Order: sequence, then C-alpha cells, then structure tokens
Amino acid sequence: NSKFMKNLKSIALLSIFLFIYANVSAQDYTVTKNHIKFNFFLDANGTPTYSLTYKDKVVIAPSALGIAIMDVGKLSQGFKVLATETEEFNQNWEPVWGEVKSIKNDYKALFVHLKALSNDQKEIKIDLIFKVFDDGLGFRYAFPIQQNLNHFIITDELTNFQLTADHKTFWIPGDYDTNEYPYTISKLSDVDVTSLSKASTEISTRKVVDIHSVQTPLMMKTVDGLYINLHEAALVNYPAMQLHVNRDNFDLSSNLVPDAFGNKAYVHTPFSTPWRTILVSDKAPDILASKMILNLNEPSKIADPSFIKPQKFVGVWWEMHVGMSTWDYAGTQNASTAADVDHLKASGKHGATTQRTKKYIDFAASNGISSVLVEGWNVGWEDWFGQWKEDVFDFVTPYPDYNVKELQDYAASKGVKIIMHHETSASVTNYERQQDTAYRFMKKFGYDAVKSGYVGKIIPRGEFHDGQWMVNHYIRTAQKTADYHIMLDAHEPVRPTGLHRTYPNWMASEAARGNEFNAWSVGNPPAHETILPFTRLIGGPMDYTPGIFRIKLDKYGKPENQVHTTLAKQLALYVTLYSPLQMAADIIENYEEKMDAFQFIKDVAVDWDDTKILTAEPGEYIATARKAKGTNNWFLGAITNQDSRKLDLSLSFLDPKANYILTTYADAPKASWDKNPEAYDIKKSIVNNKTILKAILANGGGLAASIILANKNDMKDLKKYQSK
Amino acid sequence: NSKFMKNLKSIALLSIFLFIYANVSAQDYTVTKNHIKFNFFLDANGTPTYSLTYKDKVVIAPSALGIAIMDVGKLSQGFKVLATETEEFNQNWEPVWGEVKSIKNDYKALFVHLKALSNDQKEIKIDLIFKVFDDGLGFRYAFPIQQNLNHFIITDELTNFQLTADHKTFWIPGDYDTNEYPYTISKLSDVDVTSLSKASTEISTRKVVDIHSVQTPLMMKTVDGLYINLHEAALVNYPAMQLHVNRDNFDLSSNLVPDAFGNKAYVHTPFSTPWRTILVSDKAPDILASKMILNLNEPSKIADPSFIKPQKFVGVWWEMHVGMSTWDYAGTQNASTAADVDHLKASGKHGATTQRTKKYIDFAASNGISSVLVEGWNVGWEDWFGQWKEDVFDFVTPYPDYNVKELQDYAASKGVKIIMHHETSASVTNYERQQDTAYRFMKKFGYDAVKSGYVGKIIPRGEFHDGQWMVNHYIRTAQKTADYHIMLDAHEPVRPTGLHRTYPNWMASEAARGNEFNAWSVGNPPAHETILPFTRLIGGPMDYTPGIFRIKLDKYGKPENQVHTTLAKQLALYVTLYSPLQMAADIIENYEEKMDAFQFIKDVAVDWDDTKILTAEPGEYIATARKAKGTNNWFLGAITNQDSRKLDLSLSFLDPKANYILTTYADAPKASWDKNPEAYDIKKSIVNNKTILKAILANGGGLAASIILANKNDMKDLKKYQSK
Repeated sequence: NSKFMKNLKSIALLSIFLFIYANVSAQDYTVTKNHIKFNFFLDANGTPTYSLTYKDKVVIAPSALGIAIMDVGKLSQGFKVLATETEEFNQNWEPVWGEVKSIKNDYKALFVHLKALSNDQKEIKIDLIFKVFDDGLGFRYAFPIQQNLNHFIITDELTNFQLTADHKTFWIPGDYDTNEYPYTISKLSDVDVTSLSKASTEISTRKVVDIHSVQTPLMMKTVDGLYINLHEAALVNYPAMQLHVNRDNFDLSSNLVPDAFGNKAYVHTPFSTPWRTILVSDKAPDILASKMILNLNEPSKIADPSFIKPQKFVGVWWEMHVGMSTWDYAGTQNASTAADVDHLKASGKHGATTQRTKKYIDFAASNGISSVLVEGWNVGWEDWFGQWKEDVFDFVTPYPDYNVKELQDYAASKGVKIIMHHETSASVTNYERQQDTAYRFMKKFGYDAVKSGYVGKIIPRGEFHDGQWMVNHYIRTAQKTADYHIMLDAHEPVRPTGLHRTYPNWMASEAARGNEFNAWSVGNPPAHETILPFTRLIGGPMDYTPGIFRIKLDKYGKPENQVHTTLAKQLALYVTLYSPLQMAADIIENYEEKMDAFQFIKDVAVDWDDTKILTAEPGEYIATARKAKGTNNWFLGAITNQDSRKLDLSLSFLDPKANYILTTYADAPKASWDKNPEAYDIKKSIVNNKTILKAILANGGGLAASIILANKNDMKDLKKYQSK
Repeated sequence: NSKFMKNLKSIALLSIFLFIYANVSAQDYTVTKNHIKFNFFLDANGTPTYSLTYKDKVVIAPSALGIAIMDVGKLSQGFKVLATETEEFNQNWEPVWGEVKSIKNDYKALFVHLKALSNDQKEIKIDLIFKVFDDGLGFRYAFPIQQNLNHFIITDELTNFQLTADHKTFWIPGDYDTNEYPYTISKLSDVDVTSLSKASTEISTRKVVDIHSVQTPLMMKTVDGLYINLHEAALVNYPAMQLHVNRDNFDLSSNLVPDAFGNKAYVHTPFSTPWRTILVSDKAPDILASKMILNLNEPSKIADPSFIKPQKFVGVWWEMHVGMSTWDYAGTQNASTAADVDHLKASGKHGATTQRTKKYIDFAASNGISSVLVEGWNVGWEDWFGQWKEDVFDFVTPYPDYNVKELQDYAASKGVKIIMHHETSASVTNYERQQDTAYRFMKKFGYDAVKSGYVGKIIPRGEFHDGQWMVNHYIRTAQKTADYHIMLDAHEPVRPTGLHRTYPNWMASEAARGNEFNAWSVGNPPAHETILPFTRLIGGPMDYTPGIFRIKLDKYGKPENQVHTTLAKQLALYVTLYSPLQMAADIIENYEEKMDAFQFIKDVAVDWDDTKILTAEPGEYIATARKAKGTNNWFLGAITNQDSRKLDLSLSFLDPKANYILTTYADAPKASWDKNPEAYDIKKSIVNNKTILKAILANGGGLAASIILANKNDMKDLKKYQSK
C-alpha cells in the first residue's frame, strides 16, 4: 500500500512523510526492502499484529503486540487505526570510533497511530513505529501527549515473536541480575534454565523467576539456513526485555525485568519504548556486520568527543583473579575491621601497591600501551562482597600502601595514564551519592577513564541489575562521566543496546561472561568466544579482557583451572571481539617471557576504518579482518571452538595495488587448548589481495595476523619474509 | 542484688563498673531508682524478661524480649546469662539550644551479657542494656563483635510491653509512611485504625498493614493515675518501632517498619538497637519535663555549633495552603510540560516571586524576624505530586520570576536571611544525587537554613518513610548539612527520637499533623495541640507553624475550612509547643491588621534557660512557662481543648526579689474557636512571684503572656500597668 521515494543517498538527515491515512479501516500494511518483507494488520479482535519474511521464508509469523498499564488495563485488543504514515530515510554518519569509518542508516518506516479503550472506556493513543532495514526490523511503542494518559506505570509489555519452528538457539538464562552465564546451544523446545542457574554458583548474584526465559541478544539458526537474532536497541528509561519461550508453539514473548513491586516502568508522555529488533540473513557474517542497532540509537550527545581515545591497557588485575595477590589490604574479610581504616593490618598480599603499579607503568611505557588499570587501590575491600552492605567504598581513600599523588606524577613522567576503578559492590545509592566527589578526585589526579563494577545484590534493595532504575543509573553515569570528560567501562551492567552511539564515552561494558571466569571457575568453554559476537556483542563492545599468555594456572596453585583457548586464540580475540578498550589482561611478567607474541598486542589497533567478516558460524568459528584507523594496515583474527579446523581466508579486501607484510601468530602444529595451549608459531611473508591465507586452527585455537603495508625496503629484502 | 555507690554529682563523665558476675545461674536482677523499680530475669524457657513498677504500681508486667535474625533464627528462648555489670552515672551537660540551660543525666544501668543458640546450634552473644532513670527506663539490644555473627539481617524484634489494664490511650495508626493523623483517644481494647486510615485521604501517602498497630510516642493514662509514655531514643541505622496492640491482654509488641523484602535492618557487629523508652509518673507535667530521651542520645557531633541559631521566620507559604497563590509557576499540573522549563507559561498565581518575597523581607526586617522561608521558588512544581516520579526537582533552578541573586542582595541589605526550601517529593535517590550541588548553591547565595520535604511515596521504590534506609537518609542529611554549616528543618521525616542532641543543626521536624491541615482538610481538632507535647514532641521539637491570625478562611473562598483554635491560642502555642525554629505562619497582611497581637510573636523567645510545666493533662490542657535565654524574662502559654476552662497559674517561678510587667494576650470574653475565634484582649500589669495568674481560656482557646523584668521607670509609672 505504501509508496516510497527512490533511495536517496545523503549525509544530511532526510525524513519524508509521504502519506497520512486518516481513520482508515482495518487493512494490511506492507513494507518491502531488499529481501525483507514486513506486514502489519489488526486481527479480528483488533489486536495489532505483525509478521516478517526474508526471501519469502517466514521469519516471524503473525505475532501480537500490546501493552498493559496500571489502572488503564491490558491493551491487547479492540485497537483501531487512526492514521498511518510512511517514511523513507537514508543517511551516512560517522561514529566517534568503531568498526567502520562510516555507517549507512537506510530504512523504510511505517508509523501506525492507534487508539484503544482503557478499563473505564477512555481513549488511549498508542503509536507503533516500524523501521525496515536491509537486514532486519526494529519497532517500538510510542505514547504521545494526550488527554487520558500522562504519568503511567507499565505493568507488562505484550510483544510476541512467533517463530516458525524449533530453531537451534544460543541462549543464557533469563536472569534479572546477571548475564555471566555460559551459553547453551539447544533447540527452543529444550530451553530450561533450572539446572544451569542452580549450578552456576560462580556467579555471585542470580535471580531467575521464569525457568523458560532467556536473554537477548538471542541468536537462532533455522533448519533452512536462516540466521535470526532478537534483541533491542536504545534501552532508555525502561527495563531490559527477556524472552519467555513457549516450548510448544515456539512463540517468544517479552518478559520485562520488574522492580520490587513487580512493576516494569514508571514513565510519562511523551514516551517511547526501546526498539525491539529482529536481524535476519541467510549468511551468518551479515549478522555480525549489521549496524541496525546502532542506527536505531540517537546520535551522540557529546558535543566535543576529543577526550575519547580508544586504547589498550594493562592492569593490576589478573594477579588477583588467580590468587597471586588480593584486592584487599588486610585480608581479614571481617566487617568489624572494615570501617576502621586506621587499624587495618597489611596481609602482605595486597596487589595495588605503589611499587607494583610502577612496574606496570614501566611495562606500559616500554610497549606503547596507553594505560594501567589498578583495582583494589581504595579502602573497603575487606568486606565488600556478598553482604548487601550499603556503605562500602568511598572512591577517594587509598590504602596506606598506594600513593595516589606519587603515582600520578610517575605515570605522567612516563606518558602513561592510570585507569580509575570504581567497584560499587552494587550499592548504587552509595555510589550515586559520591559520584561527583569521585569524578572530581579523578580529574584532580589526572585520571580520564574509569572501570566501574556492580558485583552483588543491588541497593536500592528490591531493584535488579537489569530493571528500569538501574538502566537509568548506567545512562546517568555515562552522561555524568561525559560531563567530566571521563571514559567509561562498565562491568556487570545491563547488556548493551547500541547506546555507545549516543554516549561514545561509554566505550565498553563487560555484561557477559568474561575471560576472568577462566581464572576461578569451570571457565568458558572453547565455543564461548565464537558465540559472543552473535549474542552479547550485537549490542556493543565488550571488555572481555583477552590476552592471557599463561593458559594453565598451576603456577598459581590452581591446577584445576585454565583458560579454555590456545595462546594464539587469545591474540585473535583482539580482532574477533570488538572493543575500543582492549586490555592486555595477563600479568606483565608472563608477557615479558613471550615478547615475540606480545608484539601482536603492541601492534593491533583498537579503532578501525573498515571491517570484513570473512567467514563465521555461531558456536563454531569466526574470522574477521579490520583496517586500522587512518592507515592501510589490516589485522586479522580467526578462532574456532573445541574443534580444530582449516579456514581458507581470502585477502581480497587488501588494496590491489599494494604489497603487505603478513605476520601470523598461529597455533603450533601440536597445539590444543587443553593439552598444549601455549605453543605458537610466528611467521612472516609478503602478501597481496590475491593471497589466500590458509589458517590452521587447533582445538580451541586461533590465528592472529598483522598485514602491514610494505615499503620499498621491505620489498627489496623479500627473502626475509619467505615462510614455509 | 546490685549495690550502687552513692549518687555523685559531677559535670564530668562518671562511669563506674561495680560488679561482674561470671557464668551466673538464673536469678533476678533488680535496680531501684527514686520511685522506679526495675527487674530482669530469664524465665523457665530462658526468655529474657523484664518488668517495671512506679511507687509499687506495676507499669510493665513481666515482658519478653528477643530478636529474630535471618539464617540465625528466632532468638527468644534458651538464653543464658554469661555475665552482668552495673553502672551508676551522673552528669550535667549543656545543650546547644533547648528548653533548659543544663540537663542532668542521672541513671543506674544494668548490662546483661547473654548467649543463645542459632538454628545450627552456634553460640550467639547478645547484650541487653537497661538504664533506669528517675522518670523511666531505657533499654536496648547490643550485638558485640563475635565469631558467629558479623553481617546480619534483623527480620524481627520481639520486644514486649505487657501493660496491666485497658488504659486510656492517645494514638495514631501504625503507618509506615506518615505520622500526620489526628489523634484518637480510646481504650487500648478499642484500637482499630481501619476507618481512620481509610478516611484520612488528606494524607497523601499512607501504608497501614496491621490494623491494630499504633505509633510511638504512645501516651497512656491508667485508671489509678499513672501517666505512661512508650517511645524510643537514638533511632540510628534501624527502622522506626511501631506497636502492635493485643486488645485482649494489653500486651504491646514491637512492629518494625520493613523494607521491600519485609526485612527490618541490615547491620553488622558491633551494633546496638535504638533505646526502647518507658516514661512514667503520677504527674502529667513530669512526662513533658523529662529529659530521658535526650540523655539516651549521643552528645553533639558538631564541634563548632556557632552557626546554629534558634530563630523565628515568616514565609511565602500559608498563602499557598489557603489557595491565594500557588507553588507552581505554570499551574498546569501537566507532566508533559514540566520538563520544558523554557516554555512554561506563568499562570499569574505563582507565590514565590521576587516582588512578593521582598515584601516578606521588608516585614521581617521591620519586626525583628530573622528569616523568610520561600516555597515554590524552584522549577518542578508543575507535576511534583503523587506521581512516584523520580526526576522532579533539581534544587538549583529558579522559576523565571524568582531572582536568586537579587533577593540575596536585598535580604542582606535588610539584615534578613532567606530559608531555602527543598521539597524532594519523596524522590530521595534524586535528592541524594544532588545534595552536594544543592548545598553548595545555598552557601553561594547566602542561605544557612533549609526546610526539607518528603511528600509522596518513597523512591527507592519499596522503601517507606520510617524504614531503616530512610532513617539513615535523614541522619546523613543532618550530618551533611552540618558539614556545610546549614540548619535543617525536616518535614515528613520519621518522628524524632532525641537526635537533636547529637545533630543540633537538625533543629526541628514536622513529622506529625501540623497546622497546615487546618488550611485544606477537616483540620486539627481543638484537643490536638494538648496531645502533641505528650506524643510527638517527646522525641523532639516540632515545626508546627503556629501563629495563624485569620482563623476563618472564608476570605480565601474556603468557608468550610478554619483553624480549630482561637487567635490567642495560636500565640500560646509558641510556648507550649517547643521548637528552636518557630514560624509566624500567617500571611503578613493578616499580621499587619493586628500588630498589637503580633507584638507577642515579636517578643517571644525561641531558646530558653529554664522551663516550668505549670499544669497539664493530655488531651485537655497545658500551661508552660519558659525563661528566655540569657535574660530574666519569662513567657507563658496556656491552652485548652474544645472545653473552656479557668486555670490558676502561680508565678512562683519568678525571681522573688523582682517585679515584672505581665502582658497577657487572652481570649476575649465571648471568644470561642468555632464561633468567634479572633476576639482577643491584651492587658498589662505588674506582677511578682506571689501572683496567681487567672487564665480564662475559651473553648479551643488559650492565653499567651510575656513577663518582662520591670525596670525603675516601669515601676515609677505603675498606673500604666493597672489592669481590671
């Protein structure tokens, strides 16, 4: 029914409203774009209903929409269309940092203005906005200013995703407080989180209510070869959406994270929900390359982003995870001494000392690493954990053996920055009271980046990590750090939804099962990193903390623990897991033993002009090449799951007129993640865009490569780069 | 069993431990002081049990004590005495401000060190501390540092007060969110809050769970003439205690205000509960004169209290309550415009304008009033109320018609201070985020006092006004304002428990049904102010906002509303209701019409060297005389309930060697609160300590008097003071 103007390419915003239908009767609305066909109609009961196909295959069968509002009622039937509008939009925009230099925002939109009746027969106006992209659909509910709806409480969202069959699914449990589960690969009909949730005692804070609920981004694959990803974009002033799985009919329905009263969101008109997103393709790499979620977010709110600098960092960190040193100074874990800072006695194992930090600064300075993260520098760690205690950290009082001023001066003399650490222990009221003080302290002492943490049960008691109140906290923190020109790296927040477009100083989040779990738990299975880009990273960059060189942890008295990859795969993760903040997470002494391998970490970029997903299959393998910002150099990462495999990777993306020096950091022939994980080979050769790189990946292995534009001298000395 | 040293009088702290019994067997412990006899024992089940008598009349029959702790269990039986100690204490201390110049802290204490077993048979140590005063008992639970108890969650306190009969009781409903009910006078067996709670729609936020629960301070009178008051002292890091009434056996049991999970307090050792207090006498004035609750609080934490100044103030306030002007600028009460400050349109009724404030400043300057309160000066009032909205006020952005800088300069030129107003709308997370910014703004613009407000449902959602989290907020706010040298007057907080000793900058609270209810509700019955000093004010000063001269509100188009007192009684309240902050609450134009009566408000002191409760009966009448700080002048207030009465008030407290000029502000002969409330007579005479002042109080009436030391000229001109 809709007619669209021709696709117009423009840097400037282009928004054209074509038709306004007033008081139309029930009918179908269809929008077609590329291989995607979207349809909307009101069913016989007046229920808003949508569907989606890709190359004529049904992705979403007709699915009901609706919303429940306190005192207003459950608005799921009896809707009438007041008017509709369509829009065609095409824009290119440049992110402050990212995987590519320029992003195309190209969609066709349908606006459906609806009305329904409240319990007391008053007219309620709700708009549905659908945006159809080449690679999927985004839609949201909007509540315009109106007579009968002003402040209101959303008690439920009634969004459905009616799938067509029992798809293969990559899922973690629907948990209000954590995303730190390992992934399960199963059919939809086998989703049951009970045993995994109970067994996951390595996750400190878990809250599962619905045992058939999963989190988004939810990745699925159909038997006829479609890759489908469900998530949301622009999660603002609203709780995270989880999905209840109807295991009989494969309908997924929205499950919003509640507050203490079971309410979902407290809002007022004008208000829009986050976008519900459906990515679809018959090629897995398309899912990884999609920019739809970024496009559904608002442009940057930061007028001058010059303080935002993608970077690599090392840190006093992994040594605590493996038990070599401790976050706390006294090591008593005794609440009765925790407040009595003056009488803490050093245990001798404290990691964040002035002396130790200087060693990290020296290492960073020597190796071109921008920054040093220091955790455990401030008082409070004696009883920070698991007590649901409100007044833990103050964010400005160092332990006696950590000299803030001395380290500021020392780091400055070396041209290195120290990254602040704010563990909140999930006592968010306490953090919020002190944020201004804490950020002023940071600026006074030369810090311009902060890693935050939210381990534990949330205070305000009754809120969850992924509820509306916390969602707003994370965003307020992004805004407030931006006001102070501070970069933010949030650990244990809600999973991202593309808000790094709007707040590019919020550079990364953990919000999933990071590398740290390998240090002290059953760890992350070898398939883990082949799933993360299809799930967690669909929403935004992840601070996974790759780069562990000492894979087996028996050196630390932990023979039962190890990292579940090869060393070469740890290097490859710098490319396959995108983040503008990348930690070189291992203890520096471990790097010093293998500086030839560390060279890749020194070289690899963290900001990119282009990205090519060379090949990918969720849960199996990924190979990605990225072009370093402002250069003609490329970096490549290829990883596999528990299975060894060979991948032929065409370097056709290279400049056809140029030659490049390829340096590969590969698994040694007999390497494997469990038996021989630290064996690697480094080789160099001259390559061009005709080259096929034959990547041989060990079980749980990977390959990292730098592909550096060759200069004349390099070419003269060709033999130097002859590899077998 | 205990032996005590002789009573020693000393300004210095005196603390003597006399006996330590180790591993004593079950036995009685008795402490006697003046007419009070206290007894403690473990009953046959090992339940800690106490009782209290006054002049051999049983006040509290044997009553059980105990505590329930999450995961530990209900600790109410099987206790064993590990050791006991006794102490005798006598000290005089001087409050920063108060009803008297010096306070005697004189008690005998019994410390009972107990142990009990947890659910898993581990030893838990609990101390009971009892302090016996001449006028009552205070006791608390204490949890020392110990192996088996560190962080813990109190799920219930099992304190009982076993009364002996069906006493006459002055109560308000046990409500987690408000103390703003009118009092009911009934027998204990008639306590049922259902109808009152439902009917009290004039109170915005109410939360009643137990219909047989009442709040403290709870005042009772026995048939044999004892006055008993139950309350608590030093409510810190713990929820308020309400009392469940067993209407069959007259046992009152502690009912702590819960959080979202029904938990009561999150604490760690060492920890002590607030003191549970029992005041008792056969003379009602003794209850009003008691300093026991102050003595049970910690000394002042404010090293330099020179910024704390008891004072009177007027304000742009009552005119909003009666509807003459509005707090909000736009008057739309529409959420959709509230955030859009730039586009608010003036309704023309906004009260807090620069011009109007200047008039109040002029009036204050002309009449020796220290300060002017201005409410509604800052943006946010368009939709502040009743929406459970988190981001309402920012505390630094004035409405366009209120010029902060201009008023700072104008007030300074007149020697007047402006009192800041921070209505939080109970969005406490929002307030806490901004407190530092708000207080810095205050200091920048010359404010040194703030009136806070907590109208609405608390955010964090799930907390209540009187729960542990909010209790801690009020105290943090007292500490933080002290840090900024700011005086604090809190409206809608938890009711006071003597913490103004510890934080003397927290000068007053409302925390009860104030005069404002007369402006727009069924109002406060004439007995109300004769009950408040026996209930609410037992815990601390109240900002009742007396001084309404225009009693009938038909001028404002509100013929159904009026103040339920005479004008003379409004004056008397400045003496009978103690506060170091006293508002002259009426609109200044109403004062300008009756400047002869306003003379009393100009003259009356707000800080005192001595106080005499001349006569009192709860719910019927109170007459109080106070000696103004640093002078030989006295002020007297006498009030009655709905009944007219005559009181013969001896002025024997006057200096026997001096003569005084008595000025009485009395009800005119035909005055009455309902028919003729504004008729008053002012008379002067010379009096001395032999004088009996015959106070004639109209129905709902009162009498105020100044008693000023006469100088020689006054005495020469004796005729001037001849009164009929």
